[in-house]
Amino acid sequence: MKTQVKHLLAVAGLLLAPHTFAQDTVKPAMSEKHAKAMVDYRQSVYTLLGSNMAPLGGMAKGAIEYDAQAMQTHGMRIEQLAAMLRDYLYVDTRDFEVETGAKDNLWDNYEDVTAKIDALADAARTLQQIAQKGEQDKYRQAIADVGASCKSCHDDYKKD
Amino acid sequence: MKTQVKHLLAVAGLLLAPHTFAQDTVKPAMSEKHAKAMVDYRQSVYTLLGSNMAPLGGMAKGAIEYDAQAMQTHGMRIEQLAAMLRDYLYVDTRDFEVETGAKDNLWDNYEDVTAKIDALADAARTLQQIAQKGEQDKYRQAIADVGASCKSCHDDYKKD
Repeated sequence: MKTQVKHLLAVAGLLLAPHTFAQDTVKPAMSEKHAKAMVDYRQSVYTLLGSNMAPLGGMAKGAIEYDAQAMQTHGMRIEQLAAMLRDYLYVDTRDFEVETGAKDNLWDNYEDVTAKIDALADAARTLQQIAQKGEQDKYRQAIADVGASCKSCHDDYKKD
Repeated sequence: MKTQVKHLLAVAGLLLAPHTFAQDTVKPAMSEKHAKAMVDYRQSVYTLLGSNMAPLGGMAKGAIEYDAQAMQTHGMRIEQLAAMLRDYLYVDTRDFEVETGAKDNLWDNYEDVTAKIDALADAARTLQQIAQKGEQDKYRQAIADVGASCKSCHDDYKKD
């Protein structure tokens, strides 16, 4: 195998773990490069989660108008991004010097972390359903539930 | 409206544009903060696209084993991320000092850009179908087509 390809695969976490999806088992990062790539990937997912939560927060506060179509799309994005979190978070980056907002205990409690990610996806799905049905009496609570799901993970596993 | 919420919404690009999805019309960024947020969002999408292309590239080269399930999931991720690109790219950030790899001509040719994004999504869908059917004689070409679709946009709209 060519060194360049080998390196690419190592970074992608594939040399030891060809099935990178929805891992239930924590695997240690294989190198500092691998760890840094994983940090980059998970932070990208958080950035995009934030970009979808911001307008939903505005809607829940009544600062912008109720918009069922936008709400549904944001809910879908958050559901998709929650799945992407699981593509990366199973890689334990604690053994390397990385700039991360993740607390070390995240990987000691990985079962709880995946349960919280699943809860986020569930809340995002519920929000989409409510938007689709046009249930205007329920959307603020549904958005609050998505936000609470984010916070529940931040409280336990994100550095202050 | 509270200033803080107003700011949040301005950054989210929602004060002027409540429907942020699959915009066919270019809209100028409203402030440097807004422009920087959009650059951050689109770069996050590119980072995640790269993380999904890398293992597919390895598979196309034969450097890692054919894995239909992984291929299907990567294809799905790329399709989802292509849609996310359209959430952000319609915001023209040229009027502000931002660190970007995007060439200025991107927003002069936005119709072509969206066509290329749609072509990426199509190629990613085809890859999923081939993976699902287990058509092992076709997957290398399907992966190459996804890569070619990325390159077609980079060639025209990404700085060297």
